[in-house]
Amino acid sequence: MENKKIKRSDDYSAWYNNLVKSADLAEHSAVKGCMVIKPYGYAIWEKMQAELDKRFKETGHQNAYFPLFIPKSFFTKEASHVEGFAKECAVVTHYRLKVDEHTGEIIVDPEAKLEEELIVRPTSETIIWNTYRDWIKSYRDLPLLINQWANVVRWEMRTRLFLRTTEFLWQEGHTAHATSQEAEAETKQMLEVYAEFAETILAVPVIKGVKTANERFAGALETYCIEGLMQDGKALQMGTSHFLGQNFAKAFDVKYVTKENKQEYVWATSWGVSTRLMGALIMCHSDDEGLILPPNLAPIQVVIVPIFRKEEEKILVLEKAKQIQKALKAKNISVKLDDRDNLTPGYKFAEYELKGVPVRIAIGPRDVQNESVEVARRDTKEKQVMSSIDIDHKIEHLLSQIQNNIYQKALDYRDEHITAVDTWDEFIDALENKTGFVSAHWDGTTESELKIKETTKATIRCIPLNNKHEEGKCVLTGKPSSQRVLFAKAY
Amino acid sequence: MENKKIKRSDDYSAWYNNLVKSADLAEHSAVKGCMVIKPYGYAIWEKMQAELDKRFKETGHQNAYFPLFIPKSFFTKEASHVEGFAKECAVVTHYRLKVDEHTGEIIVDPEAKLEEELIVRPTSETIIWNTYRDWIKSYRDLPLLINQWANVVRWEMRTRLFLRTTEFLWQEGHTAHATSQEAEAETKQMLEVYAEFAETILAVPVIKGVKTANERFAGALETYCIEGLMQDGKALQMGTSHFLGQNFAKAFDVKYVTKENKQEYVWATSWGVSTRLMGALIMCHSDDEGLILPPNLAPIQVVIVPIFRKEEEKILVLEKAKQIQKALKAKNISVKLDDRDNLTPGYKFAEYELKGVPVRIAIGPRDVQNESVEVARRDTKEKQVMSSIDIDHKIEHLLSQIQNNIYQKALDYRDEHITAVDTWDEFIDALENKTGFVSAHWDGTTESELKIKETTKATIRCIPLNNKHEEGKCVLTGKPSSQRVLFAKAY
Repeated sequence: MENKKIKRSDDYSAWYNNLVKSADLAEHSAVKGCMVIKPYGYAIWEKMQAELDKRFKETGHQNAYFPLFIPKSFFTKEASHVEGFAKECAVVTHYRLKVDEHTGEIIVDPEAKLEEELIVRPTSETIIWNTYRDWIKSYRDLPLLINQWANVVRWEMRTRLFLRTTEFLWQEGHTAHATSQEAEAETKQMLEVYAEFAETILAVPVIKGVKTANERFAGALETYCIEGLMQDGKALQMGTSHFLGQNFAKAFDVKYVTKENKQEYVWATSWGVSTRLMGALIMCHSDDEGLILPPNLAPIQVVIVPIFRKEEEKILVLEKAKQIQKALKAKNISVKLDDRDNLTPGYKFAEYELKGVPVRIAIGPRDVQNESVEVARRDTKEKQVMSSIDIDHKIEHLLSQIQNNIYQKALDYRDEHITAVDTWDEFIDALENKTGFVSAHWDGTTESELKIKETTKATIRCIPLNNKHEEGKCVLTGKPSSQRVLFAKAY
Repeated sequence: MENKKIKRSDDYSAWYNNLVKSADLAEHSAVKGCMVIKPYGYAIWEKMQAELDKRFKETGHQNAYFPLFIPKSFFTKEASHVEGFAKECAVVTHYRLKVDEHTGEIIVDPEAKLEEELIVRPTSETIIWNTYRDWIKSYRDLPLLINQWANVVRWEMRTRLFLRTTEFLWQEGHTAHATSQEAEAETKQMLEVYAEFAETILAVPVIKGVKTANERFAGALETYCIEGLMQDGKALQMGTSHFLGQNFAKAFDVKYVTKENKQEYVWATSWGVSTRLMGALIMCHSDDEGLILPPNLAPIQVVIVPIFRKEEEKILVLEKAKQIQKALKAKNISVKLDDRDNLTPGYKFAEYELKGVPVRIAIGPRDVQNESVEVARRDTKEKQVMSSIDIDHKIEHLLSQIQNNIYQKALDYRDEHITAVDTWDEFIDALENKTGFVSAHWDGTTESELKIKETTKATIRCIPLNNKHEEGKCVLTGKPSSQRVLFAKAY
């Protein structure tokens, strides 16, 4: 355990990098831009996966697996898609190495050049829609509701652990429908699934909205998103759900026979969340002492630290600790009894604080006598001595309280950081000084959007769903606008 | 559903390929050598993953994730490893595409050439041991027990779905230990985990053994394996567990400080199973009508097919079917009620037979009157009409019977196909006519092993664990031998 204790107020970015490493979540690898997800970080990701996967299956989706490689030519089939994705990518050009006869070194065998280069998937629309052509023949084959858990690669020059890495892990849903209406309903349904997951499991409040044309996924007619707010006042896009219209069906010639025996192109959606959610989780809740994990995602929900000096105390204390451990396990609470005797209780306290374990129970010889325990909450740092009678119910209740409290705290912060402004000066002031989301009128043109981005680094995060109609004037151009949109600096 | 009904006896290989496709397990993709795992196949793989993952965690392992790409130079660090793995592989040489100014086509940007080529991982020992150098400092950091679920790529010229594909899915365990003894114990423990999983979940009996030097993993001191026998008498290696000694620790300079404050190299193991297990599952149990799935892996354990002609019959029958469905679900049995009314019961029967659903329950109007159901077993094809009272207990019991029966049938076949021979003529005769494992004396030299392989296509599958000491003469050379080994033609 190494923790340099960098404060958020000193350098938020350095604080984040240090925390990811010191809490054993992830680290940079020997391969530029690629990360190693360490066991503790991966255990949190596995919990996210399990919660998401359950929701996908409950809404009728099945998992499948498509190839890692995509032929280069596939990217040219959907015109806007190639612009967005085929640029910065890993290109496989050869399939063999050999020993150089002269130098004895291992070199790429020039004779093993691929006829067509393969791209390591940056996203799988093209290879999947090329496959769907054979899977979909009739309206009876629709809807086709498929999800894939996979690694993807987008070559990045400037990377940050979890937030932006060349390789990352994600899920990508790819669905096919008979009508535009069904596809749009699916797009919105998955946005709701993501929002509910973010709020109840990650405890991160999100704004649901739709992206501007400029921020849309390459190949989509409409991109829906959930946006979270981090503690430094910057927004983070946490998930997207795309209505793809018939673009990919046309590009890959995927038609179906309707009930009326007509040939029609299929309607599509795609939607995804990634290991980026780990970044959101960390940045939304944690403090200067370390991680704060919502109980619903904590690999260890409760840690029991026994405190003793003499051998006879140890026996008594451990016996009691094991009783409590057993009672909590019976409630399906993930509990660790840390009985390592080469480390002081103080060291252990700091370690579990750093790792964000929601509840710490300390038990000493006096506690055994008094039938009490000391219970410390990670989120509020409150400590209280309580009777150990009925401890399982109390802890179960406490975990639920902590989950709610973490969410409520993030929600209060977020709500305090949505500022409605009407002038350019107010806009700049809110962005620079208050930070967070700035709700402002915008004339609806990409030109103004880009100008604002260039001047302020703020982007339109989304047009919130169920936005109120409101007449106003664009903060930049003064041109008429019919609704406010949310701007923010973002990750 | 398309099933050409190829018989095993006509063409086992064509039967296999047809079954994999017609039962919706997998198909070839547009990318040469790479497969698409379809939802039904992936659901079986997910069940395998869950069962294995549980066992890995119960034995103290944690999951983590390492990069997809490995720098070319890493492969040169472990001398024998490079021979085995760095030859046929996917090589990433560039990181950008661009539009050609003259032709307008998308080409690889020659300016985006990597300084050092990256290899798409064929296995991860090198990148992982390069990482472990920073993770392991003291004996307190050991053992380090890590597993990774990942995709890997080995360029294959001749591929077969699940059995040999360029990209496949697998898990790879990589552990680090303070002593040789501990590493060897881990190697054997994981072999036992694989064997128990294969037999109780896949219902495939396996022989546990050790590979000859010639068949060892590149970089290992000892390779343990489990070998299954398919219905065509060919063996299939289903999993391997390697004792790597200090080879990778030395190659990547991974040392630890002992309790006695000395610097020592770390001891290593690695072990893996892959989507190849899907091939074993299919080839070990299935018949000319389709898949036969052991209940422990079947995505659908029970299918209920309602039978009716008139609308009033439909109402009655479906009501009863739903009651039974509910009762089975309450027992955690995965049950599907197929109430599609555009398909005949006969069509449905054939579909679920093809897909290997272990138990089919048919309910017609008379069954409702008589409080009976018709229950059909997929494994034996036996049908019986039984009272629907207590149906949940009966089906639960039946599923367990089927699991045992499938295993026992495979075990009987396997045991009948281990033939002890003492002469070359007997050896050839057993291999060619009886097929299966041939137990024979071998002089222990790689030369004889390779000669036998060249002449007969049979390889030494393993030297069984706990092999009896027995004096004899090598079937090829007549030289002295102290034990029998198992030969077979293999996938």
